[in-house]
Amino acid sequence: MKLWGGRFDKETDSLMEEFNASISFDQRLYEEDIRGSMAHCRMLGACGIIASEEAELINKALAEILTEIKEGKLEFTAALEDIHMHVEKRLLDKIGPVGGKLHTARSRNDQVALDMHLYVKKEIIVTVSLIKNLQQVLLAAAEENLDTVMPGYTHLQRAQPVLFAHHLLAYFWKLQRDRERFQDAYKRADRLPLGAGALAGTTFPIDPKMVAAELDFANIYENSMDAVSDRDFVVEFLANASLLMAHLSCLSEDIILWNSQEFAFIQLDDAFTTGSSIMPQKKNPDVAELVRGKTGRVYGHLLALLTTLKGLPLAYNKDLQEDKEGLFDTVDTIKNCLVLYAALLRTMKIDKQRMYAAVAGDFASATDLADYLVRKGLPFREAHAVVGRLVGKCIAENRRLVDLTVTELRAHSLLFAEDALACLTPQACVEARSSYGGTAQSAVKEQLKQAKKEIKE
Amino acid sequence: MKLWGGRFDKETDSLMEEFNASISFDQRLYEEDIRGSMAHCRMLGACGIIASEEAELINKALAEILTEIKEGKLEFTAALEDIHMHVEKRLLDKIGPVGGKLHTARSRNDQVALDMHLYVKKEIIVTVSLIKNLQQVLLAAAEENLDTVMPGYTHLQRAQPVLFAHHLLAYFWKLQRDRERFQDAYKRADRLPLGAGALAGTTFPIDPKMVAAELDFANIYENSMDAVSDRDFVVEFLANASLLMAHLSCLSEDIILWNSQEFAFIQLDDAFTTGSSIMPQKKNPDVAELVRGKTGRVYGHLLALLTTLKGLPLAYNKDLQEDKEGLFDTVDTIKNCLVLYAALLRTMKIDKQRMYAAVAGDFASATDLADYLVRKGLPFREAHAVVGRLVGKCIAENRRLVDLTVTELRAHSLLFAEDALACLTPQACVEARSSYGGTAQSAVKEQLKQAKKEIKE
Amino acid sequence: MKLWGGRFDKETDSLMEEFNASISFDQRLYEEDIRGSMAHCRMLGACGIIASEEAELINKALAEILTEIKEGKLEFTAALEDIHMHVEKRLLDKIGPVGGKLHTARSRNDQVALDMHLYVKKEIIVTVSLIKNLQQVLLAAAEENLDTVMPGYTHLQRAQPVLFAHHLLAYFWKLQRDRERFQDAYKRADRLPLGAGALAGTTFPIDPKMVAAELDFANIYENSMDAVSDRDFVVEFLANASLLMAHLSCLSEDIILWNSQEFAFIQLDDAFTTGSSIMPQKKNPDVAELVRGKTGRVYGHLLALLTTLKGLPLAYNKDLQEDKEGLFDTVDTIKNCLVLYAALLRTMKIDKQRMYAAVAGDFASATDLADYLVRKGLPFREAHAVVGRLVGKCIAENRRLVDLTVTELRAHSLLFAEDALACLTPQACVEARSSYGGTAQSAVKEQLKQAKKEIKE
Amino acid sequence: MKLWGGRFDKETDSLMEEFNASISFDQRLYEEDIRGSMAHCRMLGACGIIASEEAELINKALAEILTEIKEGKLEFTAALEDIHMHVEKRLLDKIGPVGGKLHTARSRNDQVALDMHLYVKKEIIVTVSLIKNLQQVLLAAAEENLDTVMPGYTHLQRAQPVLFAHHLLAYFWKLQRDRERFQDAYKRADRLPLGAGALAGTTFPIDPKMVAAELDFANIYENSMDAVSDRDFVVEFLANASLLMAHLSCLSEDIILWNSQEFAFIQLDDAFTTGSSIMPQKKNPDVAELVRGKTGRVYGHLLALLTTLKGLPLAYNKDLQEDKEGLFDTVDTIKNCLVLYAALLRTMKIDKQRMYAAVAGDFASATDLADYLVRKGLPFREAHAVVGRLVGKCIAENRRLVDLTVTELRAHSLLFAEDALACLTPQACVEARSSYGGTAQSAVKEQLKQAKKEIKE
Repeated sequence: MKLWGGRFDKETDSLMEEFNASISFDQRLYEEDIRGSMAHCRMLGACGIIASEEAELINKALAEILTEIKEGKLEFTAALEDIHMHVEKRLLDKIGPVGGKLHTARSRNDQVALDMHLYVKKEIIVTVSLIKNLQQVLLAAAEENLDTVMPGYTHLQRAQPVLFAHHLLAYFWKLQRDRERFQDAYKRADRLPLGAGALAGTTFPIDPKMVAAELDFANIYENSMDAVSDRDFVVEFLANASLLMAHLSCLSEDIILWNSQEFAFIQLDDAFTTGSSIMPQKKNPDVAELVRGKTGRVYGHLLALLTTLKGLPLAYNKDLQEDKEGLFDTVDTIKNCLVLYAALLRTMKIDKQRMYAAVAGDFASATDLADYLVRKGLPFREAHAVVGRLVGKCIAENRRLVDLTVTELRAHSLLFAEDALACLTPQACVEARSSYGGTAQSAVKEQLKQAKKEIKE
Repeated sequence: MKLWGGRFDKETDSLMEEFNASISFDQRLYEEDIRGSMAHCRMLGACGIIASEEAELINKALAEILTEIKEGKLEFTAALEDIHMHVEKRLLDKIGPVGGKLHTARSRNDQVALDMHLYVKKEIIVTVSLIKNLQQVLLAAAEENLDTVMPGYTHLQRAQPVLFAHHLLAYFWKLQRDRERFQDAYKRADRLPLGAGALAGTTFPIDPKMVAAELDFANIYENSMDAVSDRDFVVEFLANASLLMAHLSCLSEDIILWNSQEFAFIQLDDAFTTGSSIMPQKKNPDVAELVRGKTGRVYGHLLALLTTLKGLPLAYNKDLQEDKEGLFDTVDTIKNCLVLYAALLRTMKIDKQRMYAAVAGDFASATDLADYLVRKGLPFREAHAVVGRLVGKCIAENRRLVDLTVTELRAHSLLFAEDALACLTPQACVEARSSYGGTAQSAVKEQLKQAKKEIKE
Repeated sequence: MKLWGGRFDKETDSLMEEFNASISFDQRLYEEDIRGSMAHCRMLGACGIIASEEAELINKALAEILTEIKEGKLEFTAALEDIHMHVEKRLLDKIGPVGGKLHTARSRNDQVALDMHLYVKKEIIVTVSLIKNLQQVLLAAAEENLDTVMPGYTHLQRAQPVLFAHHLLAYFWKLQRDRERFQDAYKRADRLPLGAGALAGTTFPIDPKMVAAELDFANIYENSMDAVSDRDFVVEFLANASLLMAHLSCLSEDIILWNSQEFAFIQLDDAFTTGSSIMPQKKNPDVAELVRGKTGRVYGHLLALLTTLKGLPLAYNKDLQEDKEGLFDTVDTIKNCLVLYAALLRTMKIDKQRMYAAVAGDFASATDLADYLVRKGLPFREAHAVVGRLVGKCIAENRRLVDLTVTELRAHSLLFAEDALACLTPQACVEARSSYGGTAQSAVKEQLKQAKKEIKE
Repeated sequence: MKLWGGRFDKETDSLMEEFNASISFDQRLYEEDIRGSMAHCRMLGACGIIASEEAELINKALAEILTEIKEGKLEFTAALEDIHMHVEKRLLDKIGPVGGKLHTARSRNDQVALDMHLYVKKEIIVTVSLIKNLQQVLLAAAEENLDTVMPGYTHLQRAQPVLFAHHLLAYFWKLQRDRERFQDAYKRADRLPLGAGALAGTTFPIDPKMVAAELDFANIYENSMDAVSDRDFVVEFLANASLLMAHLSCLSEDIILWNSQEFAFIQLDDAFTTGSSIMPQKKNPDVAELVRGKTGRVYGHLLALLTTLKGLPLAYNKDLQEDKEGLFDTVDTIKNCLVLYAALLRTMKIDKQRMYAAVAGDFASATDLADYLVRKGLPFREAHAVVGRLVGKCIAENRRLVDLTVTELRAHSLLFAEDALACLTPQACVEARSSYGGTAQSAVKEQLKQAKKEIKE
């Protein structure tokens, strides 16, 4: 069955049929497709475009088809191209020619756009909730680590001591922006394309507001040619997913480092690691590696769709069929990554001693010694140079800053006094950074409060 | 001069200096850098972190340096790495060691983040206004073409007649979403990173709210490690620019087609076309081609930054220096494209006759004949098949649908009556699509009203 | 069953199992996996690492498993992670613990690398042959169109007349380079990784040359850490596929244009077009549109893998598991595109009259008029200007160049003589371009001869 | 001055002029442009298309212009669009109208293609030589570290001991493939496009073989439309550069890890690191970070050009002007990265003790214990399980494998004998992997020999 055979003399080539068909992937939209059709049909009946008994008959059959598909009873075949035709064919089989009235005032162009809008809206809501869930896990871990001191890194060099809670919360805020972006994108997905027909609107006296209300759309496309060609909402989803993956890839890098024998700051749970087929001692951070690796996949889907959209004339072009597989794979990918990361973080064990040992044995407090001199009136640049020389001396003598005597300090600047060494412990360094957003416990507690507020909203 | 030489024994290699330096491109940020420094300095004075006379002295000198750079009087050199050091070095030259106090409670990590935030905020505002400008040009062109009928295309096949105004307005709405996206992104760029220091906050009693107020930031980063590592706002700018370019590339494709000898729907102004060095008759749509071509460049910058961000551990890494050149080039590119497109559309001439001839000579009204049968009670699928056969007959006999007689129509379906042929003119087809968002003049006028409302806001 | 459970206390989380498992896609490699195992096993036996009866027993069972999978008799489950474990588990079920000896001197890291090498080598050969097939179709079409004149375009403006054969052959040469690139890439895929073990080589006295010979590898990796981390050969495949798709996307654009009502140069066969669910007159060039659209998908897979590879430390990382799905989808995509394009071109009809009408009614011969003046001694730049003015005059008066009289020509330059107009017919323009690689029939015949030689090799 | 003003009534808009102009970047091609013009001119004279005195006059002037540009004496302006026009204009200024004869039998379309071919060929040769140089540095470092044992990693977990020489050589072979790819790409860049004219060939009796010989091209394009539209050779350069950067990004990740306080395997030279503006103790691996970051930039340029090429109809389109900036930036980037990496590796210091300590304190020899059991006849899978349990026991008791007694071993398998513990030292593990491509010193020496052979060729 073709919905468009009238003017054609020849059968479609079977390879072409396969190539052209989207049923292998757009079957995922069956629920959106049928829900959309039912709302459309109810409206056709209400507006008198088809008889209300016809509308009821059709919708009853559609409800049955929905159940049939849910229960795996409908067989899919490339010969029937896409999910729309499968549903329609089944409808005609069930109730005869009157089923053909469902397609009144509608084209596949606006129908598939509708399905995609419904799908994206649904998945944004799921994504937002999974992000929130991961944020809560970070929050809980942060609360438990308000006194865990670790090295903060820049250039993967130990830079200044920070609270582990602070480090974790940095990701909380990155995820917070991800959540906001998905929510912003929702607004633009929340627009009904049905009624646009093939591209120019429809000749039937439809009531799009009624359909919008039933399907919970806040807006209706103002322009039918835009409605059938717009895939912005898909690109936005992919762009937001790309940034989310970028964040998770960074978290993954941290996890992989912390889980190495060299850092050894954490231990991942057996349930979320795997071993080696050859090396019996291995316990690999597969989740983190896979998430980092899958970042490429999501970026790829974003660029794939952007490339596909480039240079298409208005209005609908078949190229747009390529909007689906990348989106579906992205949805699956980010959902899995978010769920697994929540579990991974929830079950990992922190080695506070290792973290502290790492931060205590180094020069991470050098900045504080410079700040000390600044407080005594030395311009920062000069203070920096003085401490730089002290660090050089320590390295040469294989000592730590805390090992220096006040006399030695004063050999480099007479501004040093007895209290200079007090600022060198990791705790003192952390506590000194009590500025807004800083790592001092007081500031982090404030931050936690703010974070909880965001989560509640 | 290095700001960090203290612990180093050797000079930096000169090639390394070149490679490491960002001054060749970050000089573009000089105004943001100095504005940010002045606000910071004022705050240091107000909070008593430095003496208020010192603050005044520094700020007076900074204001002079700003003027010097504007007037091209400051020479840039890779030896001074970046814009921050150039300003600071000049400051020290002018006022001596006290200039070194400016860097109190600040690191280059939060300083450069601040510069980028200020820059992105500025450029979002410019971009939004240029998009609006192009929307206005589309609006004006639409108003002048409320009675211009042309073929609407799907699959680059003539599909149904539409108003030229309707076609143009489709782009208005795409640009509207672009505008909204940039505005949404503004919210996330509007956050002050200063005070984050290198990564952990500062030990000085700073007042970030004062700086935020002076520099017009709505928010302050809640987490210092997030503040120095966050480049989301740059990625968002690039992602939004990519979608904008995708839209302009589609418009370009339309323009290039319309400007071909085969379509010949428009004539571009001499001022915005070029000729050939070898073919004297050529008048090439370079603007449209270049915009279409430059789409790749903007996509490339987006991917570049996403790739750079992938897998970086917290907090700051030197890789982040790569956030600038792609952004700067993107800003230049989209600004040029928006300005030139406004000029191109404003000056192009429409050939209404050619457009009408194109739509009249074809089967673009076939859908309407099918809809006619539907209105007589035939299910759409059957109506579609009947008309398909009529189209096949016409093609075989080299006739148009309007050339058929009612008798011929009735040979295919007895539901056809005398009035059937009336629905076949392009105007009738257009007028029949009066559904919300449709191409009928009445609907397009409604759409125009809505569009004007959006523009006013 | 896990191959690595020894040191683990807890079961793997089931969601983790799903996430980690690759069996849903790497089952495609079953034949490569088993072929590789059989060669490995035979070598283990030959080298006395396992007993030769054991080797025979294992290989007999492997051959049976191969048949079982081919016949769809082996069930796949995420609990068994990947294709390697499925085969191994089945082996143990069939022949007991001795099956465990197959994994001697081998790790999954070098095993999966081997599978991928075998797969890529196989698919390069298929791809090269499909490209050749498409080239032959182009060649045949060119031979049939050695006298078909059409407009050659630059900037989508009619530029100079060309032979349709010439236009088609341009794609022949692009495909020729594609073929060469795949063949070059084959050299680098043709390297045996087995023996690298997990990363460092093996402690058993293996004979990799024997395995290489049996599996038809020309080389063996010189470095085991390179062997398990190298995915260059996959990236190369994707990069070559991307360029191939770029070429096919350009051909698609040409086809879509030619198939439009405005150009109407060709007619696509019913078997390779589709209709519209709403517009009965439509006959859409879906193949060309889908191929153009799928270009994005292949680019995306290339960038996905490049992104995944970025910044991974040596040697194997789980991220590398992401090398497969994009490759598999790329292989399917380019094979389908190549096969369908061959069919599409083979069945399309050329409208020589329309092509000729297009080229005759325009200024495509303007260059030739300038060249005429150059031959009379005028510098090209001046000749170009003279003809530019003549074109301007014609446009203003709505005439063609051929409509000008010699007197009119001479009013612009006295170098024009009676024979000037002879160079203005499309055929004359075509024939005049007899330089090497030019569009004159003689040159195109030469080109055809060269093309046939390339195809035969 | 415009080269194509004849048919135009209006001046080009000045903003348009800027937008359209390529002189700001294509000035880099001045030498290629002039060299190409001189060869073309000599041929025009030799073939009698222009007088030989004219040819001499023109070429003398071109040689002068070349010198002028080299000495910075020619001013560039957007009004003259591109490098071709700058040269031509200067030529006309110098020798009057006869200069206009240079453009005989040539279009800017084939001229710019020629320039790009010459440029890419030149830069491939430079790149290949810089890669070779870096390979030599790796080779030298490997030779000095034939007895340096370090942990080999998979999943960033210590896996098995390897020689540092072996680890370094892994990159040698990756670079070897990069070199081969650039050389393969050279073949396809090595094709002369001149003579293709605007798209269809030329009407003049040119001798392209003479030009090819003078400019050292091995081949001539067989098809003029292919010649002016082909940018494959640029894409190939970018794809090869992308893989090169992928490799360097991995090396960078290794360097950054080794340079961290946690690993501390190496010390980078002061000359190739930088400090912090705020933290006096920092010594940052900027080169490695920048190279890793710049990977994104090169990937971006590849995607940009691929996107630009997508869906362009034949033959030349202005979009193709976008082929240059990304290429130029890629050339600069990879040259800098290669040069700096050679210097970075040449000057870094290895801490052999730290490396050895890392490998000695762990379970990296667990595989060897399993292999021991296999040699005693246990199937590998069972041996793996036995050792897994031993590792678990050690972890629980905070011991190392070497700390176990033979009695304890035998409690897990009676196959263990006195000699079992001998295989557990890092050296023994390394030496045991003497298979081809393995990490044993003997195998690495063999590898080095092979590597030197590759370098000599």
